Amino acid sequence: MTSSTLKASPLRLSTASASFEADFKARLHWSADADAAIEQRVADILTDVQQRGDAAVLDYTRRFDGLQAASMTALELSQADFKEAFDSLPAVQREALQNAAARIRSYHEAQKKASGESWSYRDADGTLLGQKVTPLDRVGIYVPGGKAAYPSSLLMNAIPAHVAGVGEIIMVVPTPAKGSVATGGAGGDASAQGERNVLVLAAAYVAGVTRAFTIGGAQAVAALAYGTATVPAVDKITGPGNAYVAAAKRRVFGTVGIDMIAGPSEILVLADGSTRPDWIAMDLFSQAEHDELAQSILLCPDADYIERVQQEIDRLLPTMPRAEIIAASLNGRGALIHTRSMEEACAISNRIAPEHLEVSSSEPHRWEPLLKHAGAIFLGAYTSESLGDYCAGPNHVLPTSSTARFSSPLGVYDFQKRSSLIEVSHAGAQVLGPIAVTLAEGEGLQAHAEAARMRLGGV
Amino acid sequence: MTSSTLKASPLRLSTASASFEADFKARLHWSADADAAIEQRVADILTDVQQRGDAAVLDYTRRFDGLQAASMTALELSQADFKEAFDSLPAVQREALQNAAARIRSYHEAQKKASGESWSYRDADGTLLGQKVTPLDRVGIYVPGGKAAYPSSLLMNAIPAHVAGVGEIIMVVPTPAKGSVATGGAGGDASAQGERNVLVLAAAYVAGVTRAFTIGGAQAVAALAYGTATVPAVDKITGPGNAYVAAAKRRVFGTVGIDMIAGPSEILVLADGSTRPDWIAMDLFSQAEHDELAQSILLCPDADYIERVQQEIDRLLPTMPRAEIIAASLNGRGALIHTRSMEEACAISNRIAPEHLEVSSSEPHRWEPLLKHAGAIFLGAYTSESLGDYCAGPNHVLPTSSTARFSSPLGVYDFQKRSSLIEVSHAGAQVLGPIAVTLAEGEGLQAHAEAARMRLGGV
Repeated sequence: MTSSTLKASPLRLSTASASFEADFKARLHWSADADAAIEQRVADILTDVQQRGDAAVLDYTRRFDGLQAASMTALELSQADFKEAFDSLPAVQREALQNAAARIRSYHEAQKKASGESWSYRDADGTLLGQKVTPLDRVGIYVPGGKAAYPSSLLMNAIPAHVAGVGEIIMVVPTPAKGSVATGGAGGDASAQGERNVLVLAAAYVAGVTRAFTIGGAQAVAALAYGTATVPAVDKITGPGNAYVAAAKRRVFGTVGIDMIAGPSEILVLADGSTRPDWIAMDLFSQAEHDELAQSILLCPDADYIERVQQEIDRLLPTMPRAEIIAASLNGRGALIHTRSMEEACAISNRIAPEHLEVSSSEPHRWEPLLKHAGAIFLGAYTSESLGDYCAGPNHVLPTSSTARFSSPLGVYDFQKRSSLIEVSHAGAQVLGPIAVTLAEGEGLQAHAEAARMRLGGV
Repeated sequence: MTSSTLKASPLRLSTASASFEADFKARLHWSADADAAIEQRVADILTDVQQRGDAAVLDYTRRFDGLQAASMTALELSQADFKEAFDSLPAVQREALQNAAARIRSYHEAQKKASGESWSYRDADGTLLGQKVTPLDRVGIYVPGGKAAYPSSLLMNAIPAHVAGVGEIIMVVPTPAKGSVATGGAGGDASAQGERNVLVLAAAYVAGVTRAFTIGGAQAVAALAYGTATVPAVDKITGPGNAYVAAAKRRVFGTVGIDMIAGPSEILVLADGSTRPDWIAMDLFSQAEHDELAQSILLCPDADYIERVQQEIDRLLPTMPRAEIIAASLNGRGALIHTRSMEEACAISNRIAPEHLEVSSSEPHRWEPLLKHAGAIFLGAYTSESLGDYCAGPNHVLPTSSTARFSSPLGVYDFQKRSSLIEVSHAGAQVLGPIAVTLAEGEGLQAHAEAARMRLGGV
């Protein structure tokens, strides 16, 4: 299809329509059906890496990425590699990475101060109660290889870990050879070094990655979770990946922590009609260009305005390099929804619990308190999602697929854990003891009761 | 075996021994191997409940719990049932529940204030950045039925949810009929009402549960995750359960949030020899009495003291109603480890990352800073784990099986989620725009770049 005949026509819905509920649910529906074949292959890879370590990782890296490395050492990147990549960039890119990193760091430092510090108090009996907040020792960050390698994602994963105080950040990033299975080939044209993304390596320099390996897929997740002779075992694995990586992360959860299993990316725009419609069209595009399954939805009480946004979509689409992906996404999963009011639009937004929520209104603070569930809320016409994605400061790793109902953006708290602190004084033991004895006996746990009873009486 | 011949002899290890590393690792080893048969049965139950709703839940409740209920309504408990249970208790039990609840509430209110409030700031360009913290709308709490029904667990799950501001707390608790499959029978002696635990119902009254259903197993998890005509769908499911419940929670993760998949309970005692050895013996018992797989470990640099603790174990064991379970746990998984120093004991504790960590020392604050990974740290001789389990205030739902390396006690934060807030001013868009344009173009995302570029220029 030529770009001149490409059309992007998001589904038009109206909350006043009798079929709205059914149409709305059908458009929202998305399910990541588990693929039994992928599940089995991933299970086998995990077991193999757990048993054979480096040798298994090397085998899979040969087979899938076409890298003929003699040892894991050949697959390790050095700090010099990172610096060389950074130095090779034009000044404008170096500065953009550094400025973005500085803003992300500053935001996450504020986050740590607001919600990530240890605390304690003593009650009237002198009993100390609190929580000690400490960083994880070592985390692994998965960075997808090839075209979907996003340096910004590396900053968004590594910087909160740094701010939390994580001691070691281990990056894995596949660098498949041209013609390898990973790049859609049959395995020919193989060498020891695959295609490295210079921006990702430069971002590793800016973010401060401790060690990095050019491995990917389930074998990289396994190496990080179980450790091998070369790859150190980590405490938590974060970062996006394909279906194999997602399945592997789900399976190693418990042995290590994981961040989340992300679904397709989504934007929901609440518009009162005061923003230039071409800005809204482009914001919908900026989500749709990620991939065909991405979802862009506009909610607006002004039918004429929705029409103008559609006109801007028609006008701007041919100018976009990724027009085909945008059209596929908007036609397959997009929606322009006419609501009775902004209040109703807010209520529908809460049902969706979107990953990105733009409140493109002249009075965003009027609507913000009505919005209960969203990964990130972008207030006002100047706050395009893309500014938030790259450099405003907040994290762009956000809960997708309605999981904002119960989960949060990636943050410093994902790289910290808490230990309760309890110090019962002699006086406190006299007050608490009888309560514990009664409850423990009610549960039939006599040793619990006796341990409390022993602490009763004189010093 | 009669109680007079029962012996509890935890494995004796010394860090000075050449075989220490191997012996230590062997004793720590525990793995929850997935049972393929359970996995398949749980998958089938989840699908069935998702498709047939109440009818499927009723079928499984008949089959497994032996309850011949005509409708889900017959399986719902009322607020009057809770109050009746509470009123039926002796005053000492009523007061113990209320005192424990008040202390747990007070601690979690402090926790919310310290780490669970919304925050925001404006940077030099007038850009607003922050996070809005909001409660989950509705959560489900699984409470195991029968003998292992612990009212204290209900308090520990429901009260943090309340403090977080969760609107509805839905409890499920199986009440299997005598002779049912769940109680080890063949399904006979069935009736519409099974065995209810009065203390659990009374705790539901004290904690403020919104609605409750006498259902359990994978079918209860499915009802909460997907919702049925009668059981409302929740946003997160917390609370312990058997292998079926654990498998079901793991499978519905993503549709809803879950807390954690708990392994066997553990205590690690760091002792400098200053605490009465009978207190330590009883603290080890209080973990061991939970079940045969529970793990109790003592680390101490004083060999004579370890001997005295063993003598107290021998003396006290015959007095314990659950002596057989305690002996099985201590013999199978317990350890008394002689260390070179308290410093070494702290280092070993960090490797274990125990669920419960008692620092039974005359100078607990000397050692606390060395302790990096633990669910809860109990400082000083008066702080028996049992006081913390029931009523000191901190939560007793803690990370097991070394997961304290990356996870935290259940808390108010488990019933809240965060939404990033971003409001870029016109001035801010001029600063952020060029950075976003450069990074977006580097990633090949032209719509992202264009959305930022459109916001450049005059108001």
